[in-house]
Amino acid sequence: MSVTAPEGFEAAGVAVGLKSSGGPDVAVVVNRGPLKLGAAVFTSNRAKANPIIWSQQVIQDGVVEAIVLNSGGANCFTGSFGFQTTHQTAEKAAELLGISAGDVLICSTGLIGTGDEVFRAKVLDGTEQGIAQLSADGGEAASLAIMTTDSKPKRSVVAREGWSIGGMAKGAGMLAPGLATMLVVITTDAVLEAAEADSALRRATGITFDRLDSDGCMSTNDQVTLLVSGASGIRPEPADFAAALTEVCLDLAQQLQGDAEGASHDITIRVVHAASESDAVEVGRSVARNNLFKAAIFGNDPNWGRVLAAIGTTAAEFDPYDVDVWMNGVRVCSQGAPDASREEVDLTPRATDLLIDLRVGEATATILTNDLTHDYVHENSAYAT
Amino acid sequence: MSVTAPEGFEAAGVAVGLKSSGGPDVAVVVNRGPLKLGAAVFTSNRAKANPIIWSQQVIQDGVVEAIVLNSGGANCFTGSFGFQTTHQTAEKAAELLGISAGDVLICSTGLIGTGDEVFRAKVLDGTEQGIAQLSADGGEAASLAIMTTDSKPKRSVVAREGWSIGGMAKGAGMLAPGLATMLVVITTDAVLEAAEADSALRRATGITFDRLDSDGCMSTNDQVTLLVSGASGIRPEPADFAAALTEVCLDLAQQLQGDAEGASHDITIRVVHAASESDAVEVGRSVARNNLFKAAIFGNDPNWGRVLAAIGTTAAEFDPYDVDVWMNGVRVCSQGAPDASREEVDLTPRATDLLIDLRVGEATATILTNDLTHDYVHENSAYAT
Repeated sequence: MSVTAPEGFEAAGVAVGLKSSGGPDVAVVVNRGPLKLGAAVFTSNRAKANPIIWSQQVIQDGVVEAIVLNSGGANCFTGSFGFQTTHQTAEKAAELLGISAGDVLICSTGLIGTGDEVFRAKVLDGTEQGIAQLSADGGEAASLAIMTTDSKPKRSVVAREGWSIGGMAKGAGMLAPGLATMLVVITTDAVLEAAEADSALRRATGITFDRLDSDGCMSTNDQVTLLVSGASGIRPEPADFAAALTEVCLDLAQQLQGDAEGASHDITIRVVHAASESDAVEVGRSVARNNLFKAAIFGNDPNWGRVLAAIGTTAAEFDPYDVDVWMNGVRVCSQGAPDASREEVDLTPRATDLLIDLRVGEATATILTNDLTHDYVHENSAYAT
Repeated sequence: MSVTAPEGFEAAGVAVGLKSSGGPDVAVVVNRGPLKLGAAVFTSNRAKANPIIWSQQVIQDGVVEAIVLNSGGANCFTGSFGFQTTHQTAEKAAELLGISAGDVLICSTGLIGTGDEVFRAKVLDGTEQGIAQLSADGGEAASLAIMTTDSKPKRSVVAREGWSIGGMAKGAGMLAPGLATMLVVITTDAVLEAAEADSALRRATGITFDRLDSDGCMSTNDQVTLLVSGASGIRPEPADFAAALTEVCLDLAQQLQGDAEGASHDITIRVVHAASESDAVEVGRSVARNNLFKAAIFGNDPNWGRVLAAIGTTAAEFDPYDVDVWMNGVRVCSQGAPDASREEVDLTPRATDLLIDLRVGEATATILTNDLTHDYVHENSAYAT
């Protein structure tokens, strides 16, 4: 059900030929209210796609009535023509829905530099078709239409007493944070104020999508949107809503990790006993971005020296000669010297656990990443062609 | 000839079984003077190998009489036993050469965590054999003994009127800067003061080895050493010496790039019209570390969108919508929009030229990197086994 699980939302997914596969490629999600609020976080990449530039304006007043998403083209670095396409898409949706274009968010994903006349015509066509097919059970179709190299759709629903949260996500490559990660739409029928929605979304993404770092590359098009219909009439405790929202975000982030391009291992990097949470994140991220470590995991090689070489490049507070490293439950390095034998570490399971104990403080962070594989290189060497 | 091209140096390379291949694995270079000076730059990785910790002390007084280098084991994170191995190696060399251990530099390269009793015995044996075989034409043998996954030795010689500079380098993976890069020994018979040698080496490495960033991974063992014999009796103009030293460093850096693990393209990233040199370096390095860009080059795909997505993550001064990008002489993106067709770009040659024109200032920098290939993943997934 994804985004149409909560009350007050309709969605659709249609195929208009943006994808060479012929699969669905335009999704529409409409917020029927009564609240019609929205919050969003965006990529922190300074090279922003046209839909990001547009949506950052739309979200200012916290009112969102609809969101149109397309795969098959990023509409990024496509000149002023590309921005006009985004603008026209919002105008088209607004006209058909009888709302203001200033309340329509736009997301695009695909190849950067794609956004010509043919692209525009198809996106406008898809917007019209999608709105014509809107339904209260269209969440599944919408989740299929935002897929790019994803092998499967990502959906999540959390139901509470009388209210719920639903979400869909796409993302398989270029998974690295910058406030947001990839295209995600989350809906809820809980009653919230706009400012509450915004802060809850920022907190939840900060410890979920922002900690997913598959390949260190940050997209130009990332956007995570929360739409609030308030249709349940129920106002949850802020802590309850935050917990449920974090649960949906973490579930979707783990689905993104599990379907990352070419990956054969899902690596959970847990950094413990750091002096601060930011130190823990910095240390975890340095390992997540180390190609040598990631290639070793692909080869089922518990090469812990590469972990230490990676964390030694950070400015975090710790003594490189007083660090413990555990791989899949085996302590392979203790206080600057080899500990258990490499042979004791079994790296054949897809789920891989790396624990780095900095032994200086009480802070903790978890970073999700993947291994570096032949398939990753293959998929990304032939993406545009 | 490499390090024995200048007058006043002897070298040797011997095989003692540190490498499973049976190839030469211990090198010794001795400075016969009369000056016996040295300068060195080291990895900025906080996770430093035992030879780095030792050599940083030795270099303090600017006097260096010998350097012992081994491949087949990094002697990093090997506990206090590993540091004692380094110390004993210097003591052994000093005893046999009749000099002070405090004037003997040590370098090691290979797998982190390798440095047990067997390793120690072989390194001490190699030191003894190497010193017994020292000769004025031993530079070639020494350059072979420091190779790890290198497919060929790296040597360079620049001769001037009456004086010269020679060098050898090893490095094939984990090529990213941090003051120095990989193991490099450079010798000269020019007459220099210790402080001159130090500042000349720092300037030369800063614009050569420090701008080589093959895979974004920084080693724990990197060291670049300059040994000064003064045997020519000639004191060159500082500018002449600096130019010659930079020439040797650049030649060796390009040889490292050309032999980087698994690479199929040598990518020269030129950033022009930056507001500052540090901005230019930051922009170039962001592209050099972008796996998606590097995989695209492997696939001969001129995916310039990934260049913009990479540079958009930097804090450098420029407008992402006013940048020009050229690939192998073709302007593929101009001021935020597609320019020449992708089809016009021929990426089949190994030498690849990426030009990024930031259009804001007068500063320039060049970064050398490689593509991300199946072979890179393969070599590094099976390194320890």
